[in-house]
Amino acid sequence: MNTIGKNIRLTSYGESHGEVVGAILDGFPAGFVLDQDFIQSQLDRRKPGQSSIATPRAEADEVIINSGLFNGKTTGAPIHFQLKNTNAKPKDYSHLKEVYRPSHADYTYDARYGEGNRDYRGGGRSSARVTAGWVAAGALVQDYIAKENKISISAYVKQIGAVKLETPARFYAVEEVDATIVRCPDKAIATQMIAAIEQAQKDKDSLGGVIECVITGVPAGLGNPVFDKLNAALGHAMLNINAVKGFELGGGFEMSSKRGSEVNDSFEMKEGKPFTKTNNSGGIQGGISNGMDIVFRVAFKPTATIGTLQSTVSTSGDEVSLEATGRHDPCVVPRAVPIVETLAALVVGDYLV
Amino acid sequence: MNTIGKNIRLTSYGESHGEVVGAILDGFPAGFVLDQDFIQSQLDRRKPGQSSIATPRAEADEVIINSGLFNGKTTGAPIHFQLKNTNAKPKDYSHLKEVYRPSHADYTYDARYGEGNRDYRGGGRSSARVTAGWVAAGALVQDYIAKENKISISAYVKQIGAVKLETPARFYAVEEVDATIVRCPDKAIATQMIAAIEQAQKDKDSLGGVIECVITGVPAGLGNPVFDKLNAALGHAMLNINAVKGFELGGGFEMSSKRGSEVNDSFEMKEGKPFTKTNNSGGIQGGISNGMDIVFRVAFKPTATIGTLQSTVSTSGDEVSLEATGRHDPCVVPRAVPIVETLAALVVGDYLV
Amino acid sequence: MNTIGKNIRLTSYGESHGEVVGAILDGFPAGFVLDQDFIQSQLDRRKPGQSSIATPRAEADEVIINSGLFNGKTTGAPIHFQLKNTNAKPKDYSHLKEVYRPSHADYTYDARYGEGNRDYRGGGRSSARVTAGWVAAGALVQDYIAKENKISISAYVKQIGAVKLETPARFYAVEEVDATIVRCPDKAIATQMIAAIEQAQKDKDSLGGVIECVITGVPAGLGNPVFDKLNAALGHAMLNINAVKGFELGGGFEMSSKRGSEVNDSFEMKEGKPFTKTNNSGGIQGGISNGMDIVFRVAFKPTATIGTLQSTVSTSGDEVSLEATGRHDPCVVPRAVPIVETLAALVVGDYLV
Amino acid sequence: MNTIGKNIRLTSYGESHGEVVGAILDGFPAGFVLDQDFIQSQLDRRKPGQSSIATPRAEADEVIINSGLFNGKTTGAPIHFQLKNTNAKPKDYSHLKEVYRPSHADYTYDARYGEGNRDYRGGGRSSARVTAGWVAAGALVQDYIAKENKISISAYVKQIGAVKLETPARFYAVEEVDATIVRCPDKAIATQMIAAIEQAQKDKDSLGGVIECVITGVPAGLGNPVFDKLNAALGHAMLNINAVKGFELGGGFEMSSKRGSEVNDSFEMKEGKPFTKTNNSGGIQGGISNGMDIVFRVAFKPTATIGTLQSTVSTSGDEVSLEATGRHDPCVVPRAVPIVETLAALVVGDYLV
Repeated sequence: MNTIGKNIRLTSYGESHGEVVGAILDGFPAGFVLDQDFIQSQLDRRKPGQSSIATPRAEADEVIINSGLFNGKTTGAPIHFQLKNTNAKPKDYSHLKEVYRPSHADYTYDARYGEGNRDYRGGGRSSARVTAGWVAAGALVQDYIAKENKISISAYVKQIGAVKLETPARFYAVEEVDATIVRCPDKAIATQMIAAIEQAQKDKDSLGGVIECVITGVPAGLGNPVFDKLNAALGHAMLNINAVKGFELGGGFEMSSKRGSEVNDSFEMKEGKPFTKTNNSGGIQGGISNGMDIVFRVAFKPTATIGTLQSTVSTSGDEVSLEATGRHDPCVVPRAVPIVETLAALVVGDYLV
Repeated sequence: MNTIGKNIRLTSYGESHGEVVGAILDGFPAGFVLDQDFIQSQLDRRKPGQSSIATPRAEADEVIINSGLFNGKTTGAPIHFQLKNTNAKPKDYSHLKEVYRPSHADYTYDARYGEGNRDYRGGGRSSARVTAGWVAAGALVQDYIAKENKISISAYVKQIGAVKLETPARFYAVEEVDATIVRCPDKAIATQMIAAIEQAQKDKDSLGGVIECVITGVPAGLGNPVFDKLNAALGHAMLNINAVKGFELGGGFEMSSKRGSEVNDSFEMKEGKPFTKTNNSGGIQGGISNGMDIVFRVAFKPTATIGTLQSTVSTSGDEVSLEATGRHDPCVVPRAVPIVETLAALVVGDYLV
Repeated sequence: MNTIGKNIRLTSYGESHGEVVGAILDGFPAGFVLDQDFIQSQLDRRKPGQSSIATPRAEADEVIINSGLFNGKTTGAPIHFQLKNTNAKPKDYSHLKEVYRPSHADYTYDARYGEGNRDYRGGGRSSARVTAGWVAAGALVQDYIAKENKISISAYVKQIGAVKLETPARFYAVEEVDATIVRCPDKAIATQMIAAIEQAQKDKDSLGGVIECVITGVPAGLGNPVFDKLNAALGHAMLNINAVKGFELGGGFEMSSKRGSEVNDSFEMKEGKPFTKTNNSGGIQGGISNGMDIVFRVAFKPTATIGTLQSTVSTSGDEVSLEATGRHDPCVVPRAVPIVETLAALVVGDYLV
Repeated sequence: MNTIGKNIRLTSYGESHGEVVGAILDGFPAGFVLDQDFIQSQLDRRKPGQSSIATPRAEADEVIINSGLFNGKTTGAPIHFQLKNTNAKPKDYSHLKEVYRPSHADYTYDARYGEGNRDYRGGGRSSARVTAGWVAAGALVQDYIAKENKISISAYVKQIGAVKLETPARFYAVEEVDATIVRCPDKAIATQMIAAIEQAQKDKDSLGGVIECVITGVPAGLGNPVFDKLNAALGHAMLNINAVKGFELGGGFEMSSKRGSEVNDSFEMKEGKPFTKTNNSGGIQGGISNGMDIVFRVAFKPTATIGTLQSTVSTSGDEVSLEATGRHDPCVVPRAVPIVETLAALVVGDYLV
């Protein structure tokens, strides 16, 4: 359904061009001083219109929090986050009412819910706009585990199209990540990435990419074996993000071509604790954290909605041509960075409390 | 925990060198004639000792089913599957009692459950032996969706080490897959894969690989948006398999370097239904099946337990050397083929019923 | 947590004297024309200030629904219901900040969430005001199962204090139930009940009571054995209502003093279907509906908050006296009738979809 | 389904006259020394054939535990409990194959699972025999919370037919409860209860009754508000026991006829903690424990299967007469005492860990 988590649970609601998007966060501990500025800062990193390479839709995305708080602190009751859709232009999308966009969720929603029930305005429920509610709620968890458990999360853009950051995964401060609008911490690479997106934009086309995420401070022993592995929960969360088509942990797919002697992580002692010399395991072994940085990557396909001419079919079964208008991102990856962080925080928080 | 699924639920139990491994399957429909031969055939594909490139541990893996059946048919009550561990040699593993094997779950289990509580015999609960219970239960679901819903699942080995099957994903009959002991349907490639495994075996080393899985016959409309996407459920299931480090759907990671115009799946009409000309979406759009084949890949790292000398630490914090003995697979990938099929069946069945 | 249901799921949020109370309904089918008037009518039956025997707090309780709808129909996406708290008077409750009211949740909330985190204004999260969100969402389900499944729910007041309706359970139309402000369908008994409440009110005291609920039209075969019995789900839902202390199905507690031959429900054939001559089973056998009316009763204790002098303790451990002021119901039972209906609808709907 | 609990989860399987009944307990903490004698003692209290007023079916009910243990201690892995059905006499029940017993689950199982799929032997899955698996698993939790949390559970027979123990609820040692075969701690009352059962037995009839349960040592603060109240979880568990038709907490139904001033539990200080002078709340306020004894009662209807002539219908729709043979209890209540304790332990353990 629309809920994620067992102990800390996020329930999402809202549509791209309805009145609101929002979320309820349940199971969050009592007595934590809510830092609305941090939450807003993560929303600002996600919001549309933030840069020349993002969709021009203008949303302030100011979050309203109207339950579960008393005197500025959480009470243990569910916390409700709401954001208004102020710049919705539903009429821009009337041309999509009866057309199934290629690689979008239009057709599958009709197959799932019955034709005629789909809110086609800007993708409706299938739009990434609903992630605004996730980020609002998840940022609170991210702030909590940072302050209470000293666990920090750093997501950044690893790849845009063919341009790739080749250096090993490491934790970057948010200032390093946000130094450029594309959120790749290497400025030279970032410049190339931005150019690639701008070129795609000019060509009425779109680009995919990869986000890498590093979580520091997770103690050894988090996770459960067999069907509740921490890596499986992380993968599940990430694969629920719009446009995500792949997930890998630590050495990932590349390890498939290697031998055990090449990629096994040997233990040594460090400050009285077992510690691995390498981190091909990505911080998780047997589904349970081993105290090293948790490292994973998330693959995003190019934005499905593009302005170039595509052939497709209509709801009535006619083959038609489509040049999508309306506002959309040439590449969703830079704005997805706080979304990856949010879901990582929700998963880790869920296992911690 | 040790349960997967919402409507059809598999609960796993047992250890590598305990008396038994098993599973309970709950929520399975009533009135289905159980085909024990099919179940046994999948267990035989998974069982140890099946070929020269598998661990020599000799287990018949004959499944006992002792609840939820009446007159050969399912009753709707939970179905209990049990397999005896007949060839357990716990003493072979006493040298592992106080040593943390690199890239294995020994250390993380101690971190999770407290030192001294770990069943170290053959990896205990963290061993892939527990997947025998999964396959027993999952094969029933696989048989059910084949007969009741005409949904077929074909997993096969796509890559072993550097050797890779480069042809596009397609459905292969089990006979094609099982034509060689490595379960790659291309015989020439299979020969190279077997040679690679044998060389690793000779070198007391191990190899990783990739399994590709194709599911045919899934109707459009299966899955749920936002946090219950079908691809997220598949990824979650696969990332719970031992040694799995990556999951990708359809075009996967490769699409991250592409433009929308290159990888968007255009719709056309075919037999009165929307149909995509390409299948980079891997059969799922917006978390919901679109009626095309579901295609995904699962990345396995090399077996962690190897016979070559490795440095590691002991439970008491000493740095030690380890040459693992005991029986293990030089490459788990060929035996993991029915495990991937089982979990795919469980996920699809879970959404269908 | 704050969610009920598996397939149709209600998540509740809000506090008595915060800005809002609300709920998200997830899993509700697509394509249903939402009848806001019916929802509002159920809210009106629950709302404060509706009669001389209810709390004087004046709330319009007009529901805002701002997601999951498109062109007046449900889309399958989560539906968000919100009600504003317009007549909150938080200052009336400052005398309760440091006092634990007898038989209220003040002390236990402090024990659960840590002292100092409790929203004490009108009971905060523990107030029955939060049931407004339940009723808004549940009324939609009640309307749905009435129209789609011909299942109707009739709750009414069976007992107030010592005054009891002795006639056998049966379905009453809402007009019969609402003919009096106390919601007992027998006018003579209702008059006595009202008098009893008025006397308690005059005495600055409170009264308990019993609500009986009859569900007609449930087909045989709804429910699951062992740990998911339909009666257990109904009991669970009802025991989550504030002030509820007991639940019984069909013959209930009274059957404990009977013999099998006295209370067994013999089957006969009626319109081609098995049918029981009596209904001591309350429509459920072995956890599964048998096609007869489902009949259960819910016991409410007297309102805990009373104006008479009580001895109690403060948060700092002093023994103090309390004469509660603020607005409260002398008897919650008449206003709880739509709440019982709502939860009954949610449970039945949850098993049906 | 067949699973209860969120953190500590019991999954049940098996049928009355199949080969086995059993359960898997998941989420149980690691490092606890399993006391098989205590588990067996609880099974002995539940087992058939234990006294002249129980069914004569002779089952040793010796439990086999074959996973989740290592060196006598729990490992954190799922624990599998199995009991063989050694005295099954399926042929005794062939006369029930085509007859729906009044007030039994025969008809509803057919309605739920489709006619012809029901295991009719001794009630199959609907038989209380499956509770043997619950008690095996639950006794471990009961032992755990007793040793680790000093929480003790005492269930005893409060009423059999018209014979009732009128003294207030209190904790009784197991020796007091088990001093008579009927498990009522007052010997004089017990004698009357036994006589009543013997008379019903002689008359080929059956009797219902009430079990009261007292849980001592639960700290204040256990439970969650709104939809996860501790009392709702207890009620849910108890209403899943075969033949249970009612549940009440503390003052229960009787409080419905009282005024607030009569039944409110005033706080006083005792050993530095708030403490209530009376315990009409039954130890739970607002869904959360208040540190007082938890007290509840469970109502059992008379055994449905009786030897006297009853009219009923057959699976083919004929009206027939039935004189049930086969073995059954004239009154299930004395044997249900450990079942109530088991489920109480599972619920409390589930909230504690």
